[in-house]
Amino acid sequence: MDAARRDALLGFLALSDRLKHVERAAMTGARRENSGEHAWQVALIAVLLHGEAPDPKPDLARVLSMIAVHDLVEIEAGDTFAFDDKGLATQAAREAEAAGRIFRLLPPDLAAEVAALWVEFEAGATPEAGFAMGCDRLQGFAQQVECGAPAWKAVGLTKARSLVRMAPAIALGAPFAPMIEALYDRALAKGLLLP
Amino acid sequence: MDAARRDALLGFLALSDRLKHVERAAMTGARRENSGEHAWQVALIAVLLHGEAPDPKPDLARVLSMIAVHDLVEIEAGDTFAFDDKGLATQAAREAEAAGRIFRLLPPDLAAEVAALWVEFEAGATPEAGFAMGCDRLQGFAQQVECGAPAWKAVGLTKARSLVRMAPAIALGAPFAPMIEALYDRALAKGLLLP
Repeated sequence: MDAARRDALLGFLALSDRLKHVERAAMTGARRENSGEHAWQVALIAVLLHGEAPDPKPDLARVLSMIAVHDLVEIEAGDTFAFDDKGLATQAAREAEAAGRIFRLLPPDLAAEVAALWVEFEAGATPEAGFAMGCDRLQGFAQQVECGAPAWKAVGLTKARSLVRMAPAIALGAPFAPMIEALYDRALAKGLLLP
Repeated sequence: MDAARRDALLGFLALSDRLKHVERAAMTGARRENSGEHAWQVALIAVLLHGEAPDPKPDLARVLSMIAVHDLVEIEAGDTFAFDDKGLATQAAREAEAAGRIFRLLPPDLAAEVAALWVEFEAGATPEAGFAMGCDRLQGFAQQVECGAPAWKAVGLTKARSLVRMAPAIALGAPFAPMIEALYDRALAKGLLLP
C-alpha cells in the first residue's frame, strides 16, 4: 500500500466518523438514534435473518457490504425522515450530490466499488439490495415501535401512510412480512399509529 | 416463521439497542463513542480493506458477521478499556457470563450460530477472525488518534505498552501494518503517546 492510498483511507475513515452524528427520526433511550449505530443494527438483523431468506439466498458478503456503506451519503445530505414530504422531494438529488463529493475521497478503485454498492442498494433491483432494504426498513420500524414513535405522532401517521413506506419490505415475504406485521399490531395497540 | 421465533427475534433486537449506550474509551466529537457505532465503523473498514488482504482472502460474509456480533456481550459486560489492567483481569469471565445470558435469548439455532461467531472472533485463530481483529484494533487506534486520545493521556500510555495491544494487528502485515505505523507517527507527533 503506497502512502497516498494509505492516507486517503485514513482520511476517509476520519470523515466517516461524522455518520455517528447524523441524527435519525427515532429515539434510542433519551436521545436520537444516529446513522452509524443504525447501520450496525441493520447488519445485525441481516446476520440473524439471512438463514430465513428464501433460496437462493442473497450473497451475505454483498448484503453486509451494502449495509455498511448505505448511509455514508448522509454525512453531507443528512437523514431524511420517511414522512418528511419536503425533504423527500429533494432527497435523491441531495444524496447523489453528496455521493459525488464523498466517495471520490477514496482511492479510485474503492470509490467505484463503494459507489456501485450504494447505487445497487438505492436501485433495489438485486436480491441482495432487496434483502438489505428489508433489514433497513425493519430496523427503522422496530426502533420507532420500541421508542414510542414520537416522530410518527408528530406527523399524525396513519397505518395507510406507513404501509406505503413498508410495502416493499412486506412484499419480500418471510422473514420480513411476519415481523413487520407483528410490529404493526404492537404499534396500533400502543396507539403509535392512527388506524 | 412461527410466533415464538418471531417474538424471540424482536425481543433480541430490542435488547441489542442497549449496545448503542455502551461507552468506549475513545471520543467522537464531544462525547464518548459507543459500541454500536464502533461496530459499524469496523465493518466499513473491513469492506474497504478486504481487497488488500493477502490471498487466499478471508471470507467476507463471515468477517462481517463476526464484526456485527463481536461486541454484543458488552450489553452486560460493558466495554473494557485496553489499558485498564483491573478490568482486563476479569474481562474474559465477565464476557463469557454475559454471552451465556444474552445469546440464549435467541432461538436455539441462532444462539449457537452467534455464539460460534463470537467464540471464533475471540479465539482469533482463523483468517476471518484475524482480519476482523485487525479491523477492530485499527478502528480503536485510529479513533483515539483522531480524538486526541484523552484516555491514553490519562494512563500515561507509552508506545511500548500500546505496541503490546497492537502487535497482533501489526503482525497481520498489509493492509493493517502500514496504516497502524502511520497512525503511530501521527500519535507521537501530536504527543498522544509517550515515546
